[in-house]
Amino acid sequence: MGMRIAVDAMGGDHAPDIPVAGALLAARELGAEIVLVGQQDRIESVIKNHPAAPDIEIVHADEVIGMDESPATALRRKRGSSIHKAAQLLRDGEVGGVVSAGNTGAVMITAKLYAGTITGVDRPALSVVLPTLVGHMVLLDVGANIDPKSQHLVQFGVMGHFLASQLLGAQNPKVGLLSIGEEAGKGTDLIREGHAALSRAPLNFIGNVESNDIYSGATDVVVCDGFTGNVVLKTSEAVVETMLYLLREELTSSRRGKLGARLAREAFRSYRKRVDYAEWGGANLLGIKGSCVICHGRSSAKAIVSGIRVALEYGNKRVNERIGEALLALGNGESGEPPLPASSC
Amino acid sequence: MGMRIAVDAMGGDHAPDIPVAGALLAARELGAEIVLVGQQDRIESVIKNHPAAPDIEIVHADEVIGMDESPATALRRKRGSSIHKAAQLLRDGEVGGVVSAGNTGAVMITAKLYAGTITGVDRPALSVVLPTLVGHMVLLDVGANIDPKSQHLVQFGVMGHFLASQLLGAQNPKVGLLSIGEEAGKGTDLIREGHAALSRAPLNFIGNVESNDIYSGATDVVVCDGFTGNVVLKTSEAVVETMLYLLREELTSSRRGKLGARLAREAFRSYRKRVDYAEWGGANLLGIKGSCVICHGRSSAKAIVSGIRVALEYGNKRVNERIGEALLALGNGESGEPPLPASSC
Repeated sequence: MGMRIAVDAMGGDHAPDIPVAGALLAARELGAEIVLVGQQDRIESVIKNHPAAPDIEIVHADEVIGMDESPATALRRKRGSSIHKAAQLLRDGEVGGVVSAGNTGAVMITAKLYAGTITGVDRPALSVVLPTLVGHMVLLDVGANIDPKSQHLVQFGVMGHFLASQLLGAQNPKVGLLSIGEEAGKGTDLIREGHAALSRAPLNFIGNVESNDIYSGATDVVVCDGFTGNVVLKTSEAVVETMLYLLREELTSSRRGKLGARLAREAFRSYRKRVDYAEWGGANLLGIKGSCVICHGRSSAKAIVSGIRVALEYGNKRVNERIGEALLALGNGESGEPPLPASSC
Repeated sequence: MGMRIAVDAMGGDHAPDIPVAGALLAARELGAEIVLVGQQDRIESVIKNHPAAPDIEIVHADEVIGMDESPATALRRKRGSSIHKAAQLLRDGEVGGVVSAGNTGAVMITAKLYAGTITGVDRPALSVVLPTLVGHMVLLDVGANIDPKSQHLVQFGVMGHFLASQLLGAQNPKVGLLSIGEEAGKGTDLIREGHAALSRAPLNFIGNVESNDIYSGATDVVVCDGFTGNVVLKTSEAVVETMLYLLREELTSSRRGKLGARLAREAFRSYRKRVDYAEWGGANLLGIKGSCVICHGRSSAKAIVSGIRVALEYGNKRVNERIGEALLALGNGESGEPPLPASSC
């Protein structure tokens, strides 16, 4: 193990209670070495409520960045925030990774600014692991770059490749480009240029895919610009929530429905878990020096634990280094002309 | 009534059976005057299976455009297709609307080409009506324009306004611009320019919205470029299908689950209906002369009937004319500088 992880104690809808609870659980279950970053007195009073809590390091940070604050403003004005302190620990090599359930934009910008990008990566990308009918897949970018160029899509593909192969165990991961039709000529200019650039890259590129290919399990990695990816993620979340709401409404509107629901309670619980975003861990900011996992704002303590697990695994499996080596071998990231044979990836 | 509707008998996954069955049902239930367009012998043999079918006009068309054919190629090579014939009937004023469950791209391009756009509209837009927690809303564009300019977003807003007010009965419909954050400065160049242009338009513009605002019922109209809208639509559909699949899997994996599901059968049936895309009718191509409803490929006969109902209502409520008048009052569609006071819309 060895690698330490900074956990933003002040990030999330139920901070500091949930992040602290998650950190304590991870320290016990994973033997992870955690540094809790945030307002010391508040963190300590949460720890007091956990009997037999393991010893855990606290790094004090005065300020808290709210979930809805503008990331750019927060970056300028709140330099004493838990997010800043955690990113500084990452920069200084005090920790190998950062986990936060806080303001996604603020965490992303701050981590990138302090830790820096790995050689070969022009733009870090935010990735999520989504459940499919048969397993899991990686979607990126989901919000770090709203206006990337085709060579960035190639870099996203390489980063997604290593995440899928190292963390999800996918063999020779299939990489698709999200579009609104499978023909190479369809879509925006970015899609057409991205299709050409990805076709030349040493990746198992399967061409353009559509949203249904995300959830069917037809691909291991789907790349897109951060605007589109963010829309996919938020639409998915909205539909899941709407469907759960409507299901509850229908089942509770009749006596038979209520009885049936009570009888099938275990099945519903397991179902809810499979479709609940908070259970899927966090989003991974790929391409910066170190690991940075941004958990859902309404994460449970268990979701924080799985975020910490991902951050550790990401570091221990040297995903960063593999990405860097592959991108360097691809040549200058700006050229968009990967000279490598397919076997190198 | 008076207005006649052409139904593409050859469009959809179960053509000609389903479109013909839907047309017969609409003729009986709505008293609609239908023209069935397609291969005469196949249409007649379907009609024979419907005892006491009402008299219905058939316009023969030799060719059939497949669901997965390239629209551009089909447009050039299959001029004798049912889609072409139906669009020609619309152009010639023989019918006031066209309903097809066929190849969306082919129907869209052909209808636009033959019928032409109404004055003031630069680019027709494809709209869908989606269910929300509290009612329904209009999302556009969902695939007709992948690269619109800000003034087109304003035109989409005006078209959506009239669809929501005339067909959904919304009072002073709230119009939102789909983005990945509510701040006006966030998003792509198109979003920023679109936000400015929509703010000046005589619409009840509520600013940037996110995907969750589509399904929550917070807006009556959401406008976006056709690439993003298509991704929203296909993602929603994929998530709905995945969730229904997972729910079935969980419920059938245990005896108690199966029993509960059987008990709550009616609730599940009603739930399925509320979330099934095929039940939501079709997509409406707004801004062309006449109405054009494109139903889901796997539409049921009832979904075809609701498509026909929408096409009729669209014509009878003179939605086209209202859109044209509003856009003319806005000035030249290309200027993007609507000079009108807010009361005009």
